[in-house]
This record gives sequence, C-alpha cells and structure tokens, in this order.
Amino acid sequence: MRVRESLDALSLDALVVTSAVNIRYLSNHAGSAGVLVLTRDGVHLLVDFRYRDGVRMLQESPAACPGLRVWEVPASYDEALLMCLAEIGSSLVGFEAAHVTVSKHDWWQRTSASRNLAITFRSTERVVEQARLIKDTAEIETLREAARRLSDVATAAFAGVREGVSERHVAGVIESAMRAAGYERVAFDTIVGSGPNAALPHYRAGDRMLSSGDLVVLDFGGVLDGYCCDLTRTVSIGSPSAEARQLHAAVFDAQRAALAAVRPGVETSVVDAAARSVLEEHGLGAAFGHGTGHGLGLDIHEEPRITWPRPDVPSVTHAPGMAFTIEPGAYLSGFGGVRIEDDVLVTETGCEVLTSVPRELKNL
Amino acid sequence: MRVRESLDALSLDALVVTSAVNIRYLSNHAGSAGVLVLTRDGVHLLVDFRYRDGVRMLQESPAACPGLRVWEVPASYDEALLMCLAEIGSSLVGFEAAHVTVSKHDWWQRTSASRNLAITFRSTERVVEQARLIKDTAEIETLREAARRLSDVATAAFAGVREGVSERHVAGVIESAMRAAGYERVAFDTIVGSGPNAALPHYRAGDRMLSSGDLVVLDFGGVLDGYCCDLTRTVSIGSPSAEARQLHAAVFDAQRAALAAVRPGVETSVVDAAARSVLEEHGLGAAFGHGTGHGLGLDIHEEPRITWPRPDVPSVTHAPGMAFTIEPGAYLSGFGGVRIEDDVLVTETGCEVLTSVPRELKNL
Repeated sequence: MRVRESLDALSLDALVVTSAVNIRYLSNHAGSAGVLVLTRDGVHLLVDFRYRDGVRMLQESPAACPGLRVWEVPASYDEALLMCLAEIGSSLVGFEAAHVTVSKHDWWQRTSASRNLAITFRSTERVVEQARLIKDTAEIETLREAARRLSDVATAAFAGVREGVSERHVAGVIESAMRAAGYERVAFDTIVGSGPNAALPHYRAGDRMLSSGDLVVLDFGGVLDGYCCDLTRTVSIGSPSAEARQLHAAVFDAQRAALAAVRPGVETSVVDAAARSVLEEHGLGAAFGHGTGHGLGLDIHEEPRITWPRPDVPSVTHAPGMAFTIEPGAYLSGFGGVRIEDDVLVTETGCEVLTSVPRELKNL
Repeated sequence: MRVRESLDALSLDALVVTSAVNIRYLSNHAGSAGVLVLTRDGVHLLVDFRYRDGVRMLQESPAACPGLRVWEVPASYDEALLMCLAEIGSSLVGFEAAHVTVSKHDWWQRTSASRNLAITFRSTERVVEQARLIKDTAEIETLREAARRLSDVATAAFAGVREGVSERHVAGVIESAMRAAGYERVAFDTIVGSGPNAALPHYRAGDRMLSSGDLVVLDFGGVLDGYCCDLTRTVSIGSPSAEARQLHAAVFDAQRAALAAVRPGVETSVVDAAARSVLEEHGLGAAFGHGTGHGLGLDIHEEPRITWPRPDVPSVTHAPGMAFTIEPGAYLSGFGGVRIEDDVLVTETGCEVLTSVPRELKNL
C-alpha cells in the first residue's frame, strides 16, 4: 500500500487521517465523522455510536477493510484519538496539515503535553492525496460508469430546456434524471445559468425564465459508489446570434486543444496553456478566468488541478490512471457565457474521454 | 455590530474571516470562495474572477453590505490576503482558529515574516459564531418560512411511502417536493431508513424495499434564502408491532419533555437531560447515543449543540432568538429505530415550535 510506504519514508510511527474522503479511501468507511490512524501494521478507525452498525455491516461485506480495528468514541473524537495513540504506543505521529485546524492541533499538543503522553505531532502534506491521484482498476470502472450515465441525464436536460421555463425548473429536471440514473446524490449544486447569468461561472439556478436568444450553461454531476462525474454543455434557446456562435466555437476549439495535449509526461500547466492560448487567439483571454480542469474521484474537486503555474497549487505531471475534467469557458459580462466540460482518464498514450455527449451548440 | 465590538474587546486591528458561512453572515456574499477582512471601520471582501459579477449584483441589490470594499484575487487567496493586510496597515490580526488549517496558518506566518510584513496572527474562537447564535428579525422570519414549508414536503413524503417501493424512491419523492416547495437546495442528504436500517441514525437511503411491519425514519430539510430547516418523522408500514409502538411512544415522551424544558436561562445540557432521562426510564438510555439537537441557521449544524456536558462542546444558556432542533431517538440494532425531530425558536417565555407536522406514529 502506497500510503503505508510513506510512513517509512517520513519515519512516522502513525499517520492520523482526519479528512473524511481520505478515511473513505483507506477504509471504505463513508460516514461524515471518524478518525483513522494508520500504523506500520494496522488500521485503527475511531467512530461514534451512530456508525457502530454501519461499520460492522461494512466489515461483513466484500468492501471490508483488512485488519481494521474499530474504536468506539464515547464523546470527543480528540479525547479518543489521544487515548488510542497512547494505547498503541505511537510517539512520532504525522497529521494532515491541510485538513487539521489550528484549534484542533493546539488542543492535541496542549493536552498530550499536560498528560505527559510522549507524542510529537508532525505536519504532513498530501500523503493520501498523492496515492489518490492514480486510480486503480476498480476506481476506473466506477468513474467510467458514472460518466457513462451522464448521457441519459443530458438527454433529459436537453428535453427539459425550452423558452418560458425557469432555470430552477431545468435544475429540477436534471436532478430527477440523476436520481433515475442511479446516482446516490448530486456531486454539487446543479448550475443552470441563462442569458446574462451564463456569464457567472459559479452561478447555480434561479427564478429567471429562459428566453429566445439565451445561451444556457448546464453544469451537473452525480456520485456513484462514492465517485464523482461532472459535465457541462451550453445550449441556445432558439437560433444563436453570430456572437454566441463565435463564442461557442472558440471554447470548443480550446477544449479540443486541451484534450489533444493530455498524455503521460505532460505537466498540468501545459494542458491549461493549450486551452488558454486558443482563447487568447480569439481575443478571449480575459474572458477565461478560471483553470481548465480539476481532478475527479471521491472528491468532486481534487488533484490534479489543471491550471496555470501557481505557487499555491501543486504542479503535477500526467500519468496513466489520473482522472480530471477539461472545461474551458468564456464569459462576457452582461452578454452571457459558454463552458464545455468533459471527464477524461489519462491512458498510456493520451487520454480516454469518459463522457460521451455531443458538444456542438444545440438549438433548443 | 456585535462582531466589530469583539475587535475592540480583543484589541485586534482586523479579523480575517475564512469560514464561508461566516463570510455570508457578515457580507451576504454566498460564494464557495472568498476571504473577508473586518476592520474597525471597514469590510474588505477578497474574491476571484468567478464572483466579480455576482458581488457587483449583490452590491446593487437591497442585500448590499454597507461599506464593502471588494478586492479581486488574481490567483492565490493567501497571497491576496497578505497584500490586503499590508495595504490597509493591520498589524495585530485575528483569525478563526477553528476554520484555518495548520498548513494555511504556517504559510501566512512564514511568508509574512520573510517579507518583513509586521503582522502578528492571533487565534480567535467563536467570534462570528457567537453573534450568529441569536437570530435577528429577518433571520427569524426566514427560519419560520423555511420550517412552515416542511409541512407540504411531509404530506408528499407520507403519500410516497408504501410497501414495495425502495428507500431511494421515497428520497426522490421528498427531494422533488422540496424543490416544488421552493427550497434552493436540500440541507443534507435525505435519510430514508427502513426496517433494520432505521437503527442507523446517519443512514441515507438505499435499495431496500419497504415491507410490512417496518418502521421507517424520514429525515429531511431544505435551505431557503440560505437558512436551514430539518424535520424527522418515523412512520410504520402497516400496523406497528407492540414493540414498535412502545419505542415510538418513549421517544415521543422524551421529545415532549425536552420541548417543555426550553426557556431562556436554561443550559443546553438541561434540555438534553430532560429527553435522556425519559428514555432512561424506559430502559432506552443506551439506545440514545446522540445529542438531543443542534442549532439551525446558515449551517445545518451550528451552535447551540443540545447535548450532555462535554469538554469539546461549548455549553450555552438559552436566550430568545436561538433556533435549534429537538430530536431524540432510540435505535435497537437489528430491529429498527425511531427519531422525532422538530425545529424550535427560543422566545421570552419558552419556545415556539416552527415545524407543524403531526408527530403521532402514522400507519402507511
């Protein structure tokens, strides 16, 4: 197991995992609470009363985590964690600095010192996240199936879009179709942005009625067995104006360029630049203010981030098994916007596009 | 403004607010990203490109935040924050220790030191949360309306529950009814736990088919104008067994006792004890492993926590304007469970129950 090898590399006795998604990745426990302690030879899961039966059922299922020891937390997870670490005799203990708050860390340090527990807490960064970057065969199958089912949802969405209905109505149609497709939940709040609202990349869905000449950005995704998929299409209500067609064509070109750039050995920033330079050639550089994509997995936004070189975002070299979105967009304030988004998997030679919904500008 | 008074009390030049919900509370900006800096005489909102138009529209609306200065973040929020603090000349800067990760705090300290910015970062706890504890008139009206609309959802839910349909189907019925009732989204994943699954307090909804003799726990809530409501009812498929009826009656009694205990001046732990002692009298103390309730507002789980005295949970004395759930339950592994949940508002003399759905055990 790659994560356990990191314990050796970092000379840690144990790694305390507090991120819910990382806990799920390591143990298959999908609760909203829990702490996991990974040691050289064991996996300790701390959960409270509410998850007692759920964890027992998990451990009796094919998804059981081998060697899992369950600790029931009577009240405070932090108290229970210190007791667990003392009992298993860990002294040099890593924690996830990107997931532990200053409050919690201060309490751990202060309380373990006052009780003379000889525990040193050491910051770690991206230990589990780096393992999660490369999907295994089962994860890839789940991501493929999750993305495949988006075709049915897109068909329902296109059928639900028409002049005179509200954005919120269309979001309802999409979310019903997601449930019918078997997703356990939506991966994020569905976006239906029409007319000027299409220029707001993180708009959700409101009371605005769709009207003739609108561009409408439809952005939705679901969660299947814990894994996320994500799709965006932009449609036109009635015949699009020349400006709308040009905007769509430019984003379509940018997406094609980014998809063509994905292959093992290429940096994420190179894929971003491929999309960005096409939009710049169309005079739309300033209209594309976000990154080109984000990783997909147990989180809807995870590594790798496909963006320009940024000091605060780890640059990643693509390798087979990475999964992420490619979603350039262009947004013109007051006019509207276009985004086209697909999900891809890096293969040995390039990428496999997991989503298969036509990308051409549809008139609805 | 109560939060600004805390700056004086703590001798801070500025408070950096990073919790999205706290940012919304202070500015009405509802984006998923943003950093707010509150000073003695100003409010600075740092947002990226994606929110440029949204914030402009907010500031032109009746919900505009007075005196808001908007800073556009070119790439990294942390970089932009240090630039903002340097430019406005804040030197003693509070931050929300319960919301800032160890990674972020380390970066702030390291980078501001290496650039010779004379900034001292100081931990604060619950500054905005304490203001949020007491709802103002507009918040109370929104909470009332959000809770009122749950009656329609419950009616639809009861109509959708019957032998032979899956839990997931019932969850779909509930979520469609929530959208029809005008909620902007669900406040949490809808729970439909039937038969033995009803014994898992944090179960969601699965493929199990409802069958005669099941107890079914239905737990759902929506978000209206940002504010959350939350309701649980337990129903029976066909005629309930004597054991099921007794379990329901005990939880019903416990909820009644807790509701009767809520009034200004009473500690949260006293309300919890009122419910817990009733269940203990019925021999169900061990079957009730969670707290009696949680605060409601911009978060679905916020202060006050209605629970037994715990070192990790702030004890709160009830005061008019506090809003929270009262939701005792009893769970018998393998058999099933009951939970009954309503939303209440503390008044001058007791409490107003905001939800109005009959609590008796329904046969469906």
